[in-house]
Amino acid sequence: MLSFEGAQTLGDAAIVEKLASLPLDGLRHQVATKDAQPCEGGILINVTGQLLAGGESNPQFFCQTFLLKPEGGSYYVQNDIFRLVYGL
Amino acid sequence: MLSFEGAQTLGDAAIVEKLASLPLDGLRHQVATKDAQPCEGGILINVTGQLLAGGESNPQFFCQTFLLKPEGGSYYVQNDIFRLVYGL
Repeated sequence: MLSFEGAQTLGDAAIVEKLASLPLDGLRHQVATKDAQPCEGGILINVTGQLLAGGESNPQFFCQTFLLKPEGGSYYVQNDIFRLVYGL
Repeated sequence: MLSFEGAQTLGDAAIVEKLASLPLDGLRHQVATKDAQPCEGGILINVTGQLLAGGESNPQFFCQTFLLKPEGGSYYVQNDIFRLVYGL
């Protein structure tokens, strides 16, 4: 499952469609922190940092959480939560 | 397991000791976003927002990720990752 800025998308095909719809051209990430924990036979990962959209000059804070599960010698993303971080 | 600002602590007793050692007096949280996903029979939760330490005037952005697992009609925190969010 993908939660992107509060919008939930379930299943491979729907998630690929959702990601393809996002305006990611020229987007740059600057990772500030990475944490990983063993979790249910997989790896729970949390990343924070800043991202700069193409053509923008003001970076935005973000955090993204993944649960990676092993399968066939590799990993797949079972859970994915992305949020921009800002005040109210 | 608890990851607090990159420091990992494993096990109930050690986590209680770690949390008791943190300067949380007067700390105020302002939650901006909450996401939850079903995960391994439990609930994966991500919270972002701002916190203001006691005596401070500048709020800091934070994000915190939990995996809650059910047990005996309630839930326990199996994984907990806390980070302040800032630029490099």
